[in-house]
Amino acid sequence: MTNYIAALVDELYQLGVREVVISPGSRSTPLSILFCEHDFNIFINVDERSAGFFALGIAKEQARPVVLVCTSGTAVANYLPAIVEAKYSGVPLIVLTADRPPELRNVGAPQTIDQNKIFGNFTKYYEELALPEESDSMYRYVRVVMQRAFASAMSKEYGVIHINVPLRDPLIPDLIKLDFTVGRSKNKFEYIQGEKKVSLDNSILKNKNGIIICGGDAYSNYHKEVIEMGERLKAPILADPISNLRNYSNDIIIDSYDAFLKNDDIKRQLEPEFIIHIGQVPVSKRLQQFLTMHHEVLYIQVGESFKYCNPSLSTKIFIATSPKLFAESICAENSNREYLDKWLRYQKQMREQLNGAKGEEHLFEGKLIQKLQGMLPEKSRLVVANSMAIRDMDCFFEARNQKVKVLCNRGANGIDGTVSTALGISASNHPTVLLTGDLAFYHDLNGLLIGKTHKLNLIILLMNNDGGGIFRYLPQSKENHFEHLFLTPQGINFEGIKTLYNTIYYEAKNYKLFEEYLNEALTLEGIKLIEVKIDSELSKKLHDKYTTL
Amino acid sequence: MTNYIAALVDELYQLGVREVVISPGSRSTPLSILFCEHDFNIFINVDERSAGFFALGIAKEQARPVVLVCTSGTAVANYLPAIVEAKYSGVPLIVLTADRPPELRNVGAPQTIDQNKIFGNFTKYYEELALPEESDSMYRYVRVVMQRAFASAMSKEYGVIHINVPLRDPLIPDLIKLDFTVGRSKNKFEYIQGEKKVSLDNSILKNKNGIIICGGDAYSNYHKEVIEMGERLKAPILADPISNLRNYSNDIIIDSYDAFLKNDDIKRQLEPEFIIHIGQVPVSKRLQQFLTMHHEVLYIQVGESFKYCNPSLSTKIFIATSPKLFAESICAENSNREYLDKWLRYQKQMREQLNGAKGEEHLFEGKLIQKLQGMLPEKSRLVVANSMAIRDMDCFFEARNQKVKVLCNRGANGIDGTVSTALGISASNHPTVLLTGDLAFYHDLNGLLIGKTHKLNLIILLMNNDGGGIFRYLPQSKENHFEHLFLTPQGINFEGIKTLYNTIYYEAKNYKLFEEYLNEALTLEGIKLIEVKIDSELSKKLHDKYTTL
Repeated sequence: MTNYIAALVDELYQLGVREVVISPGSRSTPLSILFCEHDFNIFINVDERSAGFFALGIAKEQARPVVLVCTSGTAVANYLPAIVEAKYSGVPLIVLTADRPPELRNVGAPQTIDQNKIFGNFTKYYEELALPEESDSMYRYVRVVMQRAFASAMSKEYGVIHINVPLRDPLIPDLIKLDFTVGRSKNKFEYIQGEKKVSLDNSILKNKNGIIICGGDAYSNYHKEVIEMGERLKAPILADPISNLRNYSNDIIIDSYDAFLKNDDIKRQLEPEFIIHIGQVPVSKRLQQFLTMHHEVLYIQVGESFKYCNPSLSTKIFIATSPKLFAESICAENSNREYLDKWLRYQKQMREQLNGAKGEEHLFEGKLIQKLQGMLPEKSRLVVANSMAIRDMDCFFEARNQKVKVLCNRGANGIDGTVSTALGISASNHPTVLLTGDLAFYHDLNGLLIGKTHKLNLIILLMNNDGGGIFRYLPQSKENHFEHLFLTPQGINFEGIKTLYNTIYYEAKNYKLFEEYLNEALTLEGIKLIEVKIDSELSKKLHDKYTTL
Repeated sequence: MTNYIAALVDELYQLGVREVVISPGSRSTPLSILFCEHDFNIFINVDERSAGFFALGIAKEQARPVVLVCTSGTAVANYLPAIVEAKYSGVPLIVLTADRPPELRNVGAPQTIDQNKIFGNFTKYYEELALPEESDSMYRYVRVVMQRAFASAMSKEYGVIHINVPLRDPLIPDLIKLDFTVGRSKNKFEYIQGEKKVSLDNSILKNKNGIIICGGDAYSNYHKEVIEMGERLKAPILADPISNLRNYSNDIIIDSYDAFLKNDDIKRQLEPEFIIHIGQVPVSKRLQQFLTMHHEVLYIQVGESFKYCNPSLSTKIFIATSPKLFAESICAENSNREYLDKWLRYQKQMREQLNGAKGEEHLFEGKLIQKLQGMLPEKSRLVVANSMAIRDMDCFFEARNQKVKVLCNRGANGIDGTVSTALGISASNHPTVLLTGDLAFYHDLNGLLIGKTHKLNLIILLMNNDGGGIFRYLPQSKENHFEHLFLTPQGINFEGIKTLYNTIYYEAKNYKLFEEYLNEALTLEGIKLIEVKIDSELSKKLHDKYTTL
């Protein structure tokens, strides 16, 4: 436990916190002792209500978060009055409450109350920490939690953050092993609140090899500025399928990284010196693995407001401003394009491989997407379901000068509500196509009704592999109960939709028919369902064939 | 009920909402019918889960909030999946859930569940609406709730707002009486998200007579810019005692408005054409009455992030940006200073009257504050307790070129935690004085301990009127149980503090002694308590004498 808590304590110091107000108690012992071992200004206050207000007073002077530490039980409840005041007057505080571990909760252990979200909406942010574990990845994790707490407290308007800290016996830290540097990154985490201009030191990017990652963003208004920034920095732009930066084909947009980053060698070769990340977390798991491999690299996330979007826990700078303003503010250039060219070489090679699928005879998702992309009218909307559909888009939907808006519910990545979301989007009267697997489609079958009652127009391209084909790509495929629990073949005859909702129904048994039906559907009103039945075992093989370098 | 709900519906339209997704039901009848009577695009969806995602889809296209309407009960629960997705992908939605009135809750009435905060932290903002009432002030209120909902949804990052709407039988609106214009203001409410520059049309301020209200702000960094803006606009700056704009004495800062705005005639004469409000709600109740009287005036609130701070419910424009940036962006001028001069005439007259107290012999709060202000060292902190102390400051603490920072817990205005807050502030090692009444002091007596254990320096000026003297100024003073419940004389002998905490204790029985003790206390380390016993009845009379024009 010692160095895990040491990392927590040290990270707060690195972030610029200097004052800690401790109300003594037993459960909070590791926190109290390690804060005292570090270089903070420590204040001891036995009455937690007073301690809360005392911290508030300090924070009013310092304009930086003050840390409060108390033990478990009613001690925690005594903080509420000061937390209420801090919320309404906009004062930054970080409240660390020690707690019993899960196995001692709800069993009548003394000083054990339900501390989860105990302060309700009076705190801006709540998180329960993992139990201490001594490992590099957990040191990194606990530091990131403190970074989140700090940035949340300091994002406008300032407020209170509550982190609940479960601790197991023994509670006495081992000071001989104590090392405050565990899990420290080369670069300190910085939170920058952008305003008139972005105060990022451009020299950290100048003549450095970096990448720009653009994740999904339904409201993006910064494509031009980001591409220009990429050109100045000679930084490849890894364009997620729902970033809509694949509407540009040029020497800077990369669209096939999900395929070529399968290769660990390539992942290593392409190590960047900085990463700029805009938008949501990208769909690609391989890109995520690439980022985790290079987690020491200077990672800059840009967003309108603070929201940690980086499962590799490697963000070094968060800049709260509009991506447009940020991109304009980056004037640094890179005089060397070798690094960019390396990416472009893999991109070219991979694209050729992926395009091989265009000659494929058997029905599978990749070629369907390629065909679909070629047939989408200008300004159309392509709504993509989660699970297989969006992953296939990531590989097979190429960067091309066109105006197609791709959308997907990547906030929580659910397969629920897909049909309804697509119909909501189609209500704007742009030509709209929903690309979906059978499970996502079935889950929101009721969503079809509003299409009928409100005469909405939507083409549904149903890639039916009869169940959770995506699990063939995942480790569950080797386990007991695989078919029953994961593949879940439902044996539904979707032709029934025709009668149920009076829709137009096609089954496309080959690519030629698919093209014919889609062309026809594009000219018709109402809901048009084009079903393509796919053999998921064969499809798996074709995926391997066309997406591997 | 009809026009109350009509005002709700109409305000959403005025704000720019155009799409409403309704899931039919009985309790929500007034909402459903009146939305249909207005000019919205209406979508009907019987399955609330689908309806939620359908609204999400529309909002992804439109980048403006879409309204969801459903009836009470599990209908509400069905929205959760779409709300979760909207939160994580940053999509603006306004969810209106009909509910039974309070008397039908928790009694087993059908379709009645606890809808309060049912979506927890997945919504950005929750509010329960008042039951419908047909009155101008309630029309205004319900419009303001919609304004809050809209601005909260549209402040970055976009998100979901939940408004619970209790409705009583009968539920059928009376369409003959229907009037969508009830409670409409001349000016539509606007929410402006500031970025590189503030997109406020300066012509609305040019050659207009306005006032600038500066409320409390512990982190203000915009004094110079706001004063310059005031000079350009010839707009008096009403400087709250904790705005710290009373550190400037010039021809634009007004400090005595709380006293001269007692007079209704003056309130009317000083009607402005615009109001710019920065910082918290000001302390002065009379200023509040003045604002309520002129609630039709163009009221512009400026804050780092959206937070409605205007109990007169009259905000017309909210600009989310830093006040500094805002003040710099206002280049409009006023070529006429007559309106400003009117304010300055009252200010001069009132200040003379207030300064009459300097010759007073009897001990009372006003003169004590005047004496204290003259003796505070440069860069000192003056922490003020709530209740009487801060109100007396409002009248008697004058604008003067000096560097004293005044602080007070005006977030929730509690009398709790006062001593601790002051000690927290004093930990910065600036000379710190706490100005407090006896109840606020007593409430946080425990707060003194940390002063002793950490050797902090603080002068406490205790104005002891033995209880809740402030209630003598309030209507409770004429009621039964007044002394017992409100005046609450505690008969505490505060000299005991001397022994309890080993502090220095003085009782100042006259102004000369007060001056002597304060001078001495300013040279000493540790906690110094100066008690001044005040006869609250006499004090009330002296207040009337010196604060009335």
